[in-house]
Amino acid sequence: MKIAIAGAGAMGSRIGLMLHRAGNEVILIDRWAAHIQMIRDHGLRANYNGEDIVEHMQIYSPEEIDAKHESVDLIVALTKSMGLREMFEEIKPIITENTYVLSLMNGLGHAEDLAEFVDRDHIILGVTMWTAAMEGPGKVKLFGTGNIELQNLAPAGATFTKDVVQIFDDAGLNATYSQNVKYSIWRKACVNGTLNGLCTILDTNITGVGTTSTAAEMVQTIINEFALVAAKEGIELDQTEVYEHITATYDPAGIGLHYPSMYQDLIKNQRLTEIDYINGAVAAKGKKYGISTPYCTFLTQLVHAKEEILGAK
Amino acid sequence: MKIAIAGAGAMGSRIGLMLHRAGNEVILIDRWAAHIQMIRDHGLRANYNGEDIVEHMQIYSPEEIDAKHESVDLIVALTKSMGLREMFEEIKPIITENTYVLSLMNGLGHAEDLAEFVDRDHIILGVTMWTAAMEGPGKVKLFGTGNIELQNLAPAGATFTKDVVQIFDDAGLNATYSQNVKYSIWRKACVNGTLNGLCTILDTNITGVGTTSTAAEMVQTIINEFALVAAKEGIELDQTEVYEHITATYDPAGIGLHYPSMYQDLIKNQRLTEIDYINGAVAAKGKKYGISTPYCTFLTQLVHAKEEILGAK
Repeated sequence: MKIAIAGAGAMGSRIGLMLHRAGNEVILIDRWAAHIQMIRDHGLRANYNGEDIVEHMQIYSPEEIDAKHESVDLIVALTKSMGLREMFEEIKPIITENTYVLSLMNGLGHAEDLAEFVDRDHIILGVTMWTAAMEGPGKVKLFGTGNIELQNLAPAGATFTKDVVQIFDDAGLNATYSQNVKYSIWRKACVNGTLNGLCTILDTNITGVGTTSTAAEMVQTIINEFALVAAKEGIELDQTEVYEHITATYDPAGIGLHYPSMYQDLIKNQRLTEIDYINGAVAAKGKKYGISTPYCTFLTQLVHAKEEILGAK
Repeated sequence: MKIAIAGAGAMGSRIGLMLHRAGNEVILIDRWAAHIQMIRDHGLRANYNGEDIVEHMQIYSPEEIDAKHESVDLIVALTKSMGLREMFEEIKPIITENTYVLSLMNGLGHAEDLAEFVDRDHIILGVTMWTAAMEGPGKVKLFGTGNIELQNLAPAGATFTKDVVQIFDDAGLNATYSQNVKYSIWRKACVNGTLNGLCTILDTNITGVGTTSTAAEMVQTIINEFALVAAKEGIELDQTEVYEHITATYDPAGIGLHYPSMYQDLIKNQRLTEIDYINGAVAAKGKKYGISTPYCTFLTQLVHAKEEILGAK
């Protein structure tokens, strides 16, 4: 299968590398000039479960994608949320009416963005528990194990999606065909919608938030807002299970001492956050459905204020 | 008039000093040992509109107040909100059935606390626009001008309150008898309920908050919650006027570059904040009246979380 990875950061590099090692034709697409140059000069280098490996792969910046490139069967979308539309505008030359797009991105609302570029029949949604870290341009650290759940957005996409599951599974990505991937997307969005914003605004790690006396009420109120909005989209979140799943992350012996990606984006690197695709998306959907979501709204406003105060770009 | 200042920080020192200079019998009461010692050794020193002055006054710690002290006609309450009850427990020896108490404290709910110690007839509420700053133990900086509005909580207190207005005015404190001091208290609480919490949580000054694109919605939503709760207590806040009053403080040429007291307490000095007497009080009253106050509730939870994260005491 001919596959493009749109957004070859840490996670995009992992998926691309594993698919390429398994014999698929894979091209990476990313905006980071130094990353592109290093991969062209030295290949994609990875510390892969302790072993140093190099995978020689094609990589392009989105503006380099033009009519001379062959179209692809599948595009895996792994950009930052706010960069998704712009990326797809630029890589239109490799999209045909036969091209499928798989979103493995965190947050909500990406299917709507992608529907501007491909039929809903050709959209696949996924959630992954794999992790990956960038060590520098052209170099990633890929440790531990994970899995991927995939499901087609519209019924007509089922056959192709099952092929994708097979290809991903053959590449060692532990892929399964999901009967309810939207539930998994909303559940993961709840994790991000609580820990990301609270750690960022309170300038602390997951344990730091989790051990405060007000964490329980804040987290439960936010989950409740997500659940009320999700219900309008036919997803019945198990709030108790989601809350327990989140509190399990507080353990400092687990991932508790980790600073979530939003913290790293904004507080560490003064970059704009994905808040509009997490709490902001719930607030926007809530407004549409006439559901009050004050915690999501206020948290989104606070994070945007903090972006402006820190001059994030 | 024999007057005790309960809480002789910067503002208590200003009021005490000006009343003492005007010939009243004034004693200061405060917990800060070094402050007490400096005032006993050198008098209360003040940079008073550019002139260095010394006022020799009596000062006691609350635990020194016992039956050998004469009772006072008036106690001016100027403690930190959370220290008010404990202070009045300790200074009971100078309180008789003829003693009046004037609260000049910021925030809401102090009259309820004071009603445990004196009749409602003997409670006076006030709001001041004077400023004052502590320069160190025993030393204050008193610049600029200001005013004080006073009103008795219950009708029977009117005569004595008017005497107090006269005494304060004679001392140069620009005191007036208010027809609606509660309105002024709620209006001032709105200023504190927006700028204090937002500056603290966003780690910036007033201009920093005011120039963000989300400030308008956040501030207006918080004012609206204050107004809905105030209405249940018979106070009809003019939300437009209050909002304009708050936005006027954003100007960096005015007080915009100032970090509010809550910021100084928590972020600068790792001290517990008065949030429970501002946004927390509105949230608690809202709950009692069945009015939803999510922004006040969330902001209170965030500030308490931040107190715990910073180990504030």
